[in-house]
Amino acid sequence: MAEFRALNDDFAAIVRGSFNRQGLMHLLGATLEDVQPGYVHILLPFKEGLTQQHSYFHAGAITSVVDSACGYAALTLMPPDTEVLTIEYKVNFLAPARGEFAIARGHVLKPGRTVTVCQGEVLVVQDGIEKLCATMLATMISRQEFQEAV
Amino acid sequence: MAEFRALNDDFAAIVRGSFNRQGLMHLLGATLEDVQPGYVHILLPFKEGLTQQHSYFHAGAITSVVDSACGYAALTLMPPDTEVLTIEYKVNFLAPARGEFAIARGHVLKPGRTVTVCQGEVLVVQDGIEKLCATMLATMISRQEFQEAV
Amino acid sequence: MAEFRALNDDFAAIVRGSFNRQGLMHLLGATLEDVQPGYVHILLPFKEGLTQQHSYFHAGAITSVVDSACGYAALTLMPPDTEVLTIEYKVNFLAPARGEFAIARGHVLKPGRTVTVCQGEVLVVQDGIEKLCATMLATMISRQEFQEAV
Amino acid sequence: MAEFRALNDDFAAIVRGSFNRQGLMHLLGATLEDVQPGYVHILLPFKEGLTQQHSYFHAGAITSVVDSACGYAALTLMPPDTEVLTIEYKVNFLAPARGEFAIARGHVLKPGRTVTVCQGEVLVVQDGIEKLCATMLATMISRQEFQEAV
Repeated sequence: MAEFRALNDDFAAIVRGSFNRQGLMHLLGATLEDVQPGYVHILLPFKEGLTQQHSYFHAGAITSVVDSACGYAALTLMPPDTEVLTIEYKVNFLAPARGEFAIARGHVLKPGRTVTVCQGEVLVVQDGIEKLCATMLATMISRQEFQEAV
Repeated sequence: MAEFRALNDDFAAIVRGSFNRQGLMHLLGATLEDVQPGYVHILLPFKEGLTQQHSYFHAGAITSVVDSACGYAALTLMPPDTEVLTIEYKVNFLAPARGEFAIARGHVLKPGRTVTVCQGEVLVVQDGIEKLCATMLATMISRQEFQEAV
Repeated sequence: MAEFRALNDDFAAIVRGSFNRQGLMHLLGATLEDVQPGYVHILLPFKEGLTQQHSYFHAGAITSVVDSACGYAALTLMPPDTEVLTIEYKVNFLAPARGEFAIARGHVLKPGRTVTVCQGEVLVVQDGIEKLCATMLATMISRQEFQEAV
Repeated sequence: MAEFRALNDDFAAIVRGSFNRQGLMHLLGATLEDVQPGYVHILLPFKEGLTQQHSYFHAGAITSVVDSACGYAALTLMPPDTEVLTIEYKVNFLAPARGEFAIARGHVLKPGRTVTVCQGEVLVVQDGIEKLCATMLATMISRQEFQEAV
């Protein structure tokens, strides 16, 4: 992955503040583990409330955390006073998401003034073994642009 | 949308039983409203635990319910003793998802023996006014195939 | 599909002029059949140069025409002096694309000042029978925005 | 990217034979440059017949070559007597595709008995400078499965 430089010295505090306002991350039990320029890492411990019908992580739970990881990865590179929204994403599920916790990583692939493209991945960890279970390709936009644009 | 005929007389009971085993639907507060051959409708009332940082529905909450709607729409047309998993999906977010509740509808676009393609949509309702806020295009697979396939 | 009103009286002439400057449409042999506000229809007669290894239409040929149909559907609703570029798309292939010609239809799903979301479909016609063979979900942007944005 | 081992000693010859039967690759002027287990590299020199309305490579031309690269990357890991078809893909366009030639690379992300997930990228080269202009996430299936499945 490319190395990026943040335009905003407070990028990590801004991401942490915004993450804490996401009710869904609290409900799911997700925690924000690492914030770097162009990169965010979220942890999601397994619990019964996250499952689909076979007691794996539900695709929607996986998607929720990797969407937040990608959105905040985009936000780390945006100017001050910008907010970020998701335009669209695609997720491929590569293996049954069974494990004690999931790790979602969002990376910026191509930053932009208004549109930022991100790549995300989700690993599940079971008995200490990591397995790639999902990959995301996402398009993010600054909130100001989104509200005028759509 | 096309009209489909179920191969399995018990399709609605099977979908309801499987939905009830999805821990995530309970956690989110989603309810299964309607099940027809090739069509499923899920309701998601707004609550604080479903939000992103601007207090709209989080893209991940929206995606979770429309993924379940599409997966179960696929399952209604599958033979008995089949289970369904999501291979992949794409979602476009068309408007800020602000409202008292969200309605997720999954439709089968093209059924298949192993692979079924579905289209989903999410409406948000605020003060009685419905607004289309997301659209999904998804590929589903029978569980047996998925486990051998990936 | 929704009904739209064009902001630009010359939308059809602008789309036709732009289509004629697309070298790829000439190479493939595609023709622009219909242009309405929010809707474009392109025809692609079969020829050997459009095939994949089983002599069906190549997924790339199908995608090329439905991308142009969606992009121009978006352009019909944009203000004068705007040009359109594709940010991203997803295509699902629903059936082998075998036939004497393909019909690509692009519809605007949600117009926007800068970002427009479109839905496309491709039918193949063999012995007078139409079959849906592909569906596209695409995000378009005005060219000015794209150049500043990415 | 992961290292893979081919199940079929003749994988490279099979891919080359199949590529040569793709009429679209001839029409576009694409050439197959490298075939490794789980990896395929295709070259596309610029010509007028590949353009969109601003004389860049058309998104459809870019998609065509990276679809072939991903499909053949999947095929390198399949058993003998298997053929490959595209179920679906998503492409993000990251920069205007202007240059003397384009390089499409397809990688297998997750091989499977029937379903294989691939990642592709397209670089354009202008005045010796490479620029990433598109990224693909694709789902491939063996032809036998596809015909029964859809």
